[in-house]
Amino acid sequence: MTTAHPLRWTRADAEARDASDPLAPLRDQFALPDGTIYLDGNSLGVLPRATAARVQQVVTEEWGRGLITSWNRAGWIELPGRVGDKIARLVGARPGELVVADSTSVNLFKVLSAALAIARADAPQRRVIVSERSNFPTDLYIAESLARAHDLRLVLAEAEDLPALLADRPALLMLTQVNYRSGRLHDMAALTQAAHAAGTLTVWDLAHSAGALPVDLHGAQADFAVGCGYKYLNGGPGAPAFVWAHPRHAERFWQPLAGWMGHAAPFEFTPDYRPAPGIGRYLCGTPSVIGAAALECGVDTLLAAERLGGLAALRAKSLALSEAFIAGVEARCAGHGLQLVTPRDAALRGSQVSFAHAEGGYAMVQALIARGVVGDFRAPDLLRFGFTPLYTRHVDVWDAVEQLRQVLETGEWREARFQQRAAVT
Amino acid sequence: MTTAHPLRWTRADAEARDASDPLAPLRDQFALPDGTIYLDGNSLGVLPRATAARVQQVVTEEWGRGLITSWNRAGWIELPGRVGDKIARLVGARPGELVVADSTSVNLFKVLSAALAIARADAPQRRVIVSERSNFPTDLYIAESLARAHDLRLVLAEAEDLPALLADRPALLMLTQVNYRSGRLHDMAALTQAAHAAGTLTVWDLAHSAGALPVDLHGAQADFAVGCGYKYLNGGPGAPAFVWAHPRHAERFWQPLAGWMGHAAPFEFTPDYRPAPGIGRYLCGTPSVIGAAALECGVDTLLAAERLGGLAALRAKSLALSEAFIAGVEARCAGHGLQLVTPRDAALRGSQVSFAHAEGGYAMVQALIARGVVGDFRAPDLLRFGFTPLYTRHVDVWDAVEQLRQVLETGEWREARFQQRAAVT
Repeated sequence: MTTAHPLRWTRADAEARDASDPLAPLRDQFALPDGTIYLDGNSLGVLPRATAARVQQVVTEEWGRGLITSWNRAGWIELPGRVGDKIARLVGARPGELVVADSTSVNLFKVLSAALAIARADAPQRRVIVSERSNFPTDLYIAESLARAHDLRLVLAEAEDLPALLADRPALLMLTQVNYRSGRLHDMAALTQAAHAAGTLTVWDLAHSAGALPVDLHGAQADFAVGCGYKYLNGGPGAPAFVWAHPRHAERFWQPLAGWMGHAAPFEFTPDYRPAPGIGRYLCGTPSVIGAAALECGVDTLLAAERLGGLAALRAKSLALSEAFIAGVEARCAGHGLQLVTPRDAALRGSQVSFAHAEGGYAMVQALIARGVVGDFRAPDLLRFGFTPLYTRHVDVWDAVEQLRQVLETGEWREARFQQRAAVT
Repeated sequence: MTTAHPLRWTRADAEARDASDPLAPLRDQFALPDGTIYLDGNSLGVLPRATAARVQQVVTEEWGRGLITSWNRAGWIELPGRVGDKIARLVGARPGELVVADSTSVNLFKVLSAALAIARADAPQRRVIVSERSNFPTDLYIAESLARAHDLRLVLAEAEDLPALLADRPALLMLTQVNYRSGRLHDMAALTQAAHAAGTLTVWDLAHSAGALPVDLHGAQADFAVGCGYKYLNGGPGAPAFVWAHPRHAERFWQPLAGWMGHAAPFEFTPDYRPAPGIGRYLCGTPSVIGAAALECGVDTLLAAERLGGLAALRAKSLALSEAFIAGVEARCAGHGLQLVTPRDAALRGSQVSFAHAEGGYAMVQALIARGVVGDFRAPDLLRFGFTPLYTRHVDVWDAVEQLRQVLETGEWREARFQQRAAVT
């Protein structure tokens, strides 16, 4: 293995790192398209090789041949809990505490409703939900909606000002553990402890942390959590999301999306709602079977890392990749106006790196995509690159930096074809 | 074609009906399992032949190769509206008025919230939601949840008592157009007219009518509607559902599940929610792409009927099938205690037939399934059979009656193996 500082790496150094990477075989689990360096697994994870066959089995055998009997015979009815138990292993939750259901947005509505109801019961004078100003919009919109309905205030602040706001004893602190823009990682344990000291409940969105780094919900004594199935969990576009409530809260409240699958006995078809025990009551409608089956394949790609050091090993690799990228861009792409937005301190960094460019962010990302390097753009000015340790190699980092260097040196990003905005950015 | 009364049909008569059925070619669209007579399309529609290949394309090409670029290049972002526009053609809605999203339960929460907010604004003294006592439980649970949150009362009544309850001028009338137990069809136009005369808004669940019979939301001047993707629309297990709001209501309210996909400009990532125009604001989280693509294949099987007379022709066939089943059971299975629950009057009948049997309902359904005739059981006593006109033949009806006759005459349903309850019934 090379010991050269990342600033002075050559491509051969990167190749040597890959050759000695014990996690390298995990990449074979994925159907990566030829000629693409994919640095957007933080937006949509890559297709696992196992998924296509599994989805085909669900469609043609379980649905096509088994039809309605597959609810029992193929175990469809158990999917939300079975896949949930697997995700629980990635986020420090215990079996039976976490289910796969709906979207992150819908699950946020459930847990925020529950947390607010508990806060209302325990501390009715508290009227504030605190969150980060640059939290992912859907989190803010759902919180805003509930704040409006319950006559509360949603107070937004910069990350560094959050602890001070706890002094005002808000009802709720709602954060995404890794910020989708900056890639900054919050200290879940410290913030939860500070929140609890202020009598404040915590709701964590794990969209950019579940599957990307070790998460320990129980260790942090977190109150509620939700997360996304289609980013680091590789569940496919629009995969079902997940929801967790600490056992001390799970049965304290009937969350308002009281659909039949959250009923204690859905097939008794009783007219009165009686919530299922524990996290089961956070289910709502009929689960997306194909989606949950695909998600299970994605989660399995992470569980395959358990024998290789698990998320701790993946985390170490992810940080090595993002550090190499930062160093490479700063060494080889200097003088073009890129400003590092992601914390340089590894302890504060998730699994992505963002640079700001006031003028050219969008076009530079488009020019990179045309060269086969897929990152994404986040308005108004961010170039965002995700380093999913399951399938990203050191050589991919080296090559991505090289392509970015060429985009900048040629100035090709100024061409009109790269300025044209698409519907989804 | 035979003109024999259904009570006196022979199997040859049924075969003759099928031979002269102009809708018969539609059955070729489906991958029906050999040796099964499937009378449960009202619970889970059959797999269309086109679906497996389309799902595989989404998984391996659009996701696997296109990755994140498929949101634009494969049109994923337009799926909820594109499939919604196709469903609109089946339910008397107009392009741009209906979207595919979430589950029926979640969509019910959205439209009930909206309808209650409008009622609160226009008639704040109204405190009652009226529904049918035997409405599908998820509808009642969601309504109960909102009633609890808004200090309203949910009043349940038998179908025939609903018009009288409108005299009390409730805020809302929420009904499933075809009752999931009895198969009774409500007169949407008449009930909506009566509701409006009382100043009451209507919310219709089309779970057992969309795709089963002609629905005319605009003709009925309905206020809100939701529906299910996996029954008569053949979208697959847990397929996304749909939601419609009359244009006069669509923009009057910000429904509370204010996720980012319902924002006017989701990719501006602004911290403040600004709802999309029209029905777009009824989207919430990231849509299930695989689920929506499969649903589109299912909806296409119904649109294929448009050149053959469309839903009017399908409705005529469905009624012929259910009438033949009722007549056949009453003629050939008499004396075994089966009581017809479904209205004999075709104008009051959806696309299913239910019989009650106090003692043996569950076991009889199991014995039939063992013989390859798949209906289902609804606690406590209903044997339920759906007659999906797209793929059910007259000869299937004849054979199903024959199998039921043998189950009853042999008494085999009393065997212990048919009494064992499964998780899903």
